Amino acid sequence: MPSEFELIARHFARPTPRTLLGPGDDCALLAPSPGMALAVTTDMLVEGTHFLPATDPRLLGWKALAVNLSDLAAMGATPRWAFLAGSLPAARDDWLAAFADGLFACAGRHGVDLAGGDTTRGPLNLCLTAIGEVPAGTALRRDGAMPGDDLWVSGQPGLAALGLAHLQQRTRLPDELAARCVNALQNPWPRIELGLALRERGLARAAIDVSDGLLADLGHLLQRSRLAGRVSLAALPPLPAVADPALARQCQLAGGDDYELAFAAPPAKRGELAALALELALPLWRCGETCAGEGGTLTVWDAHGKAVAVNERGFDHFGH
Amino acid sequence: MPSEFELIARHFARPTPRTLLGPGDDCALLAPSPGMALAVTTDMLVEGTHFLPATDPRLLGWKALAVNLSDLAAMGATPRWAFLAGSLPAARDDWLAAFADGLFACAGRHGVDLAGGDTTRGPLNLCLTAIGEVPAGTALRRDGAMPGDDLWVSGQPGLAALGLAHLQQRTRLPDELAARCVNALQNPWPRIELGLALRERGLARAAIDVSDGLLADLGHLLQRSRLAGRVSLAALPPLPAVADPALARQCQLAGGDDYELAFAAPPAKRGELAALALELALPLWRCGETCAGEGGTLTVWDAHGKAVAVNERGFDHFGH
Repeated sequence: MPSEFELIARHFARPTPRTLLGPGDDCALLAPSPGMALAVTTDMLVEGTHFLPATDPRLLGWKALAVNLSDLAAMGATPRWAFLAGSLPAARDDWLAAFADGLFACAGRHGVDLAGGDTTRGPLNLCLTAIGEVPAGTALRRDGAMPGDDLWVSGQPGLAALGLAHLQQRTRLPDELAARCVNALQNPWPRIELGLALRERGLARAAIDVSDGLLADLGHLLQRSRLAGRVSLAALPPLPAVADPALARQCQLAGGDDYELAFAAPPAKRGELAALALELALPLWRCGETCAGEGGTLTVWDAHGKAVAVNERGFDHFGH
Repeated sequence: MPSEFELIARHFARPTPRTLLGPGDDCALLAPSPGMALAVTTDMLVEGTHFLPATDPRLLGWKALAVNLSDLAAMGATPRWAFLAGSLPAARDDWLAAFADGLFACAGRHGVDLAGGDTTRGPLNLCLTAIGEVPAGTALRRDGAMPGDDLWVSGQPGLAALGLAHLQQRTRLPDELAARCVNALQNPWPRIELGLALRERGLARAAIDVSDGLLADLGHLLQRSRLAGRVSLAALPPLPAVADPALARQCQLAGGDDYELAFAAPPAKRGELAALALELALPLWRCGETCAGEGGTLTVWDAHGKAVAVNERGFDHFGH
């Protein structure tokens, strides 16, 4: 059986052209670009909590990095480096090879060096840390929204949660929709270009990535900005045609794992945002607005202008 | 039951004076100092693999950060920021409070901001990422040793492994020694000052921290430097007086977890290194030398000048 060091060398030691010193020493050495702040994020993915045991390791490799890059996207940062720490029940060469393929596909697509890491034995757990660069003082934070800003969300939040419900046989989706939803769950595409454009063009005042669920993450943004907000169901993307529309609505409002961006932008930017959506071929939905009020309070309105009681505000790993 | 967000806020959101933007957003924002390279390391600690289930959470918090700072020490870097990702079987408030106390004690002692992290549910697993600064081009790497360099090690490697053997009742140590060894295991002190002095004064050409075991880690250093080496048992620290000297020797040569530094230095630096040992009140043992030969090959000599067969070359998480 190959040793830990041999396995790591075989699968994870690839060229790191943007790194002073890559894997193989006590630390990696990075050279930040002058004038840049570093955006750093870390996410832990646990088998059974964040992904199903049977998940294709190639897709898992992609996703493990993609969810971190999504956090960089939400700051408007350019991805540069990633670090992988993983514990595995046993050293499975084919599993590692497929996982590495997925990880490096995502890294290569986004110009990221895997600059270091750690491998050990234990229940399957993957911890990625990603580092990006953003000009100092320009990052898209959660706390910059102003009263009267529009609230926007990209893409079609909720598909990933519907895909999970389908895989867990809590619902039965038509084949084509099932494929689309499972793909949203397993192969999320971090919205790097959107985050960069929002920051560089000064279009958004605050942003967050939708990982816990749309309402929960809008709530986090509003709380950090000390504002309340309103979301209109009629302004969200149309629900997919499914047998259980209530489930589809719940997935849209409370499903995480799509890794879309939600953001606050001044009304004066509506035209530029509509043009950006066309440019990126990515729908942008103006779904609500901010207002003065208790920080983090979000009310949801139906198509008839009535407040809707919503008790599924997203996924919280410990609370209920 | 408090939510995940409340638990994190309660225990881990402390002031981060050296950080542009600390916990609570999608990413932390750091401002690297001009002219500095960043040294980055990540380590994963798994219950049952790296620590015993009954470990005092305060000691675990200290150690989880200390082992990462040890990697920074081995590069001669100044610690700046840390990120914690953890999975826990359940949200235990008292456990988190004690763990945070230990972690912040280590962070405060070494000037480190806990700048961000992630908390989730799963088998107990702690992943720390630490970032330090080092003037570009001056870091102590593993690959800088030259033929004829002395090999050195700090402190008393092996005590931590003896402490573990005592806790696991594989041996029975006298009370005072047991306390010292268990302390070495549970409360390691990263050799930051030593690493900084070695780099700033140009005393070492290559360094590594002893986490896998003295022979294994010297082997890693030699392999990266494409050199062979010799270690003399008579030049290592005297073994503690125990009933099982063979176990003590095995712990010294192959026990990890002491987080001492091993390094290669030119013979011309012996005087300065002796003075540094006095200055830091930390023994430095000149235990061997490098030589031309197959990269990574280490021979061990006994007090009579005979080569010793050694088959315990340290801890490898997967191979055996």
